[in-house]
Amino acid sequence: MPMSAITPTRNEDYPEWYQQVIKAADLAETSDVRGCMVIKPWGYAIWENIQRQLDDMFKATGHENAYFPLFIPMSFLEKEAEHVEGFAKECAVVTHHRLEPDPDGGLRPSPGSKLEEPLIVRPTSETIIGATFARWVQSYRDLPILLNQWANVVRWEMRTRMFLRTAEFLWQEGHTVHASAEEAQAETKQMLDVYADFAENHMAMPVIKGRKTAGERFPGAVDTLSIEALMQDLKALQAGTSHFLGQNFARAQDIKFQDVNGELTHAWTTSWGVSTRLVGGLIMTHADDDGMVIPPKLAPAHVAILPIYKNDDERAAVLSYCDSLKAELESQTFDGASVRVKLDDRDMRGGDKKWQWVKRGVPIRAEIGPRDVKGEGVFVSRRDIDGKGQGTPRGELVVEITNTLAEMQQNLFDRAAKLRDAASVEINSMEDFEKFFADDAPGGLAYSHFVDDPEMEAKLKAMKLTARCVPLDGEKENGKCIFTGADSERRGVFARAY
Amino acid sequence: MPMSAITPTRNEDYPEWYQQVIKAADLAETSDVRGCMVIKPWGYAIWENIQRQLDDMFKATGHENAYFPLFIPMSFLEKEAEHVEGFAKECAVVTHHRLEPDPDGGLRPSPGSKLEEPLIVRPTSETIIGATFARWVQSYRDLPILLNQWANVVRWEMRTRMFLRTAEFLWQEGHTVHASAEEAQAETKQMLDVYADFAENHMAMPVIKGRKTAGERFPGAVDTLSIEALMQDLKALQAGTSHFLGQNFARAQDIKFQDVNGELTHAWTTSWGVSTRLVGGLIMTHADDDGMVIPPKLAPAHVAILPIYKNDDERAAVLSYCDSLKAELESQTFDGASVRVKLDDRDMRGGDKKWQWVKRGVPIRAEIGPRDVKGEGVFVSRRDIDGKGQGTPRGELVVEITNTLAEMQQNLFDRAAKLRDAASVEINSMEDFEKFFADDAPGGLAYSHFVDDPEMEAKLKAMKLTARCVPLDGEKENGKCIFTGADSERRGVFARAY
Repeated sequence: MPMSAITPTRNEDYPEWYQQVIKAADLAETSDVRGCMVIKPWGYAIWENIQRQLDDMFKATGHENAYFPLFIPMSFLEKEAEHVEGFAKECAVVTHHRLEPDPDGGLRPSPGSKLEEPLIVRPTSETIIGATFARWVQSYRDLPILLNQWANVVRWEMRTRMFLRTAEFLWQEGHTVHASAEEAQAETKQMLDVYADFAENHMAMPVIKGRKTAGERFPGAVDTLSIEALMQDLKALQAGTSHFLGQNFARAQDIKFQDVNGELTHAWTTSWGVSTRLVGGLIMTHADDDGMVIPPKLAPAHVAILPIYKNDDERAAVLSYCDSLKAELESQTFDGASVRVKLDDRDMRGGDKKWQWVKRGVPIRAEIGPRDVKGEGVFVSRRDIDGKGQGTPRGELVVEITNTLAEMQQNLFDRAAKLRDAASVEINSMEDFEKFFADDAPGGLAYSHFVDDPEMEAKLKAMKLTARCVPLDGEKENGKCIFTGADSERRGVFARAY
Repeated sequence: MPMSAITPTRNEDYPEWYQQVIKAADLAETSDVRGCMVIKPWGYAIWENIQRQLDDMFKATGHENAYFPLFIPMSFLEKEAEHVEGFAKECAVVTHHRLEPDPDGGLRPSPGSKLEEPLIVRPTSETIIGATFARWVQSYRDLPILLNQWANVVRWEMRTRMFLRTAEFLWQEGHTVHASAEEAQAETKQMLDVYADFAENHMAMPVIKGRKTAGERFPGAVDTLSIEALMQDLKALQAGTSHFLGQNFARAQDIKFQDVNGELTHAWTTSWGVSTRLVGGLIMTHADDDGMVIPPKLAPAHVAILPIYKNDDERAAVLSYCDSLKAELESQTFDGASVRVKLDDRDMRGGDKKWQWVKRGVPIRAEIGPRDVKGEGVFVSRRDIDGKGQGTPRGELVVEITNTLAEMQQNLFDRAAKLRDAASVEINSMEDFEKFFADDAPGGLAYSHFVDDPEMEAKLKAMKLTARCVPLDGEKENGKCIFTGADSERRGVFARAY
């Protein structure tokens, strides 16, 4: 019998472990279309929870949802030079609008249906939404415009990995227009804070809020802020970005308004997004060698009740007990809603069933057999704690469920923060830097002085490292750039990254 | 001053009135991409309510959400002959995955990035989801599979019309797999009932549940059920369809399972969907010559509070009164959630502001000026009733709000049902049929005996009419087909249609 439910373990082969967790937890699978995945019900239910909780936060900060076209005329991409540079090399291009029988059998794109102008499947929507904003904005009275859209986007990635990097992915993209640079910058920062709040308090994933270096900026942005998390293999994951676009896109798309003095001015815009990549972040932050571990706030079910019986008599008594326990648990609340309970009465081996729920990462398993019914008890196992679980009086499980879930949520955060903090090191010389990231060293997050220039970028690239960000809460501190020796005032965070 | 807020009125030019309502109510607008629309926040908020309420109904009937790829390999479409026939002529075809600079300036699809097999942007997902089901289904123990997906789809329509027929639209598509024909047929019927329940009890739109004739069936289906509604111009709208696919798609895609006896059998599948077309149905069912009218259950806001004041002193008193009224109204519930209240304190002319809310179709407007504050009153106008509104004690508005909204919901349904019933006629001869649908006659729903054959189809086509459905609750009754004189046992419903 293997010591863990997932083979290989994290230590044996982290990338393969990641794929196996996704499979064992029924989160997703590869599809028949290159680079596109099928998100299975359990994985999609996690995404739905992410969506709903983030959406509430967006609405609470004054944003409304809307929907813009999937397709972008090719000429729109040409308008912003950096933007096209960033996206033209990896996009799905629609060139025809009809199929016809191929003389050789099968189908082919009908030559007569060739589009005058090709359409790009949106890789991001700044250009198509900007064209709409240009029509909507005339006066400062029309501003700000604060919109968000939940949508699918396509980037033709060559190396794909489920959730982390797929050709098609699901995301939200916020797009806002403002009458001043200050207001747009405040919006950019506000949404970064929303993302950090969500990551830490809903995903239980500690993050660093920071500013991207020039080489890592969104194509066309003046400034890109991001949240960065550390995965269990000590590689960093960019989990969300918020861009101050200045007047770049407004100029490219002619978004102008008459200000209070009657002057015609280009507006200031922002955009910000998170995607199904967050599910990848959840897995790599919390899952273990037995499979997925889901923070309670995002779990599709908080409790899985697993009835155990040998014959029809036992079945009736056990199921009736389970039904009433389910109702009692559901009458309790967690995170502002009813506790979510799944009673799993499928006809399969008890051990297989139990391990399926372990691998799926449900926070609490409640096993109930005839003896538990007699003793008014339940055998409770917590997914965040090793060990076999324990018999618990039924009333205690119900009364404590809210606290238990809150404690688990905190516990997962603390565990991840501990790992992250232990792997975060201030490094002050190139020699130490190279040692820290040597092939046989564990690596982590290096906090080092630097000057943001092409020489640094080149050295990092050669080492397969990236500048993650300059932390917003970093202290101003005099030092020397470890790459060039030049004077520096701030430390950046460097790491291997997804 | 015009007699109505919308020009032209329904009587003057119904199609143009429809476009003007969409514009005046801020529901949507055309985009820079042929046939694709921008759904604006007020329109999208209606769609979000439709989504959430339908989603709850799907989950209550045991369905789970998942997500499948946007793209379908061209070869997948070829597998089901009728299906390809139905969709090949109107689809967006992706042929390249990269752009490059065009020697003439601008961009072009990079010839080196041509795909070996073109990808189709999904017009519907039976084929790509079926390919996945083929992997998932081995034994009867794997069945049923009950899935739904919320997604965008693309059909390259030549004549588009906002919400009713657009190249890209948003929808949900349910896809299920069953171990017997009976079970799949029961699912098909169940989802039709869910749609009818939603249409009548949430959209306040009366519908006929029926079976499609052969010519109107979904390409590849054995049987298509639909709900049909009558719009105010007495044209019918197909508002939702539920398909029994028999073993057709299972055969084309090799979805096989080992049944209880160990025999390998093709499974039975269903699919069912509704789309943003429902928003078009809402408009054409309820809107009037002053703009949109939204049934309370789907209204993004139930009450718009409109403060009126002339100076800062008045402003403070009026706004404080409005704030507390808002809180009191929000403490009331309707349809299982808090009453939704929008306090509109924008700096614009009172008349313009009021008319904006009329045109947007908010159920209740509450205007409040200094005199109302003194008298503890509020000037209340209901969108479903003509006339100027009336002064109402504040307490009465609050105590009655739940009843009032419920009454409005019912009132809108009754009004639509009355129109529909008045325009529904049993017709027993071709002569009367031709009179009923003459160019200068109002038309409506003709209930006539018929035999479902190509001769009938041809005659209907020549008259620009369609067979809508054979009502499921229709009585068996002997008669003669009005088209051919042949014996018939059931009446069908015939109409002009969208």
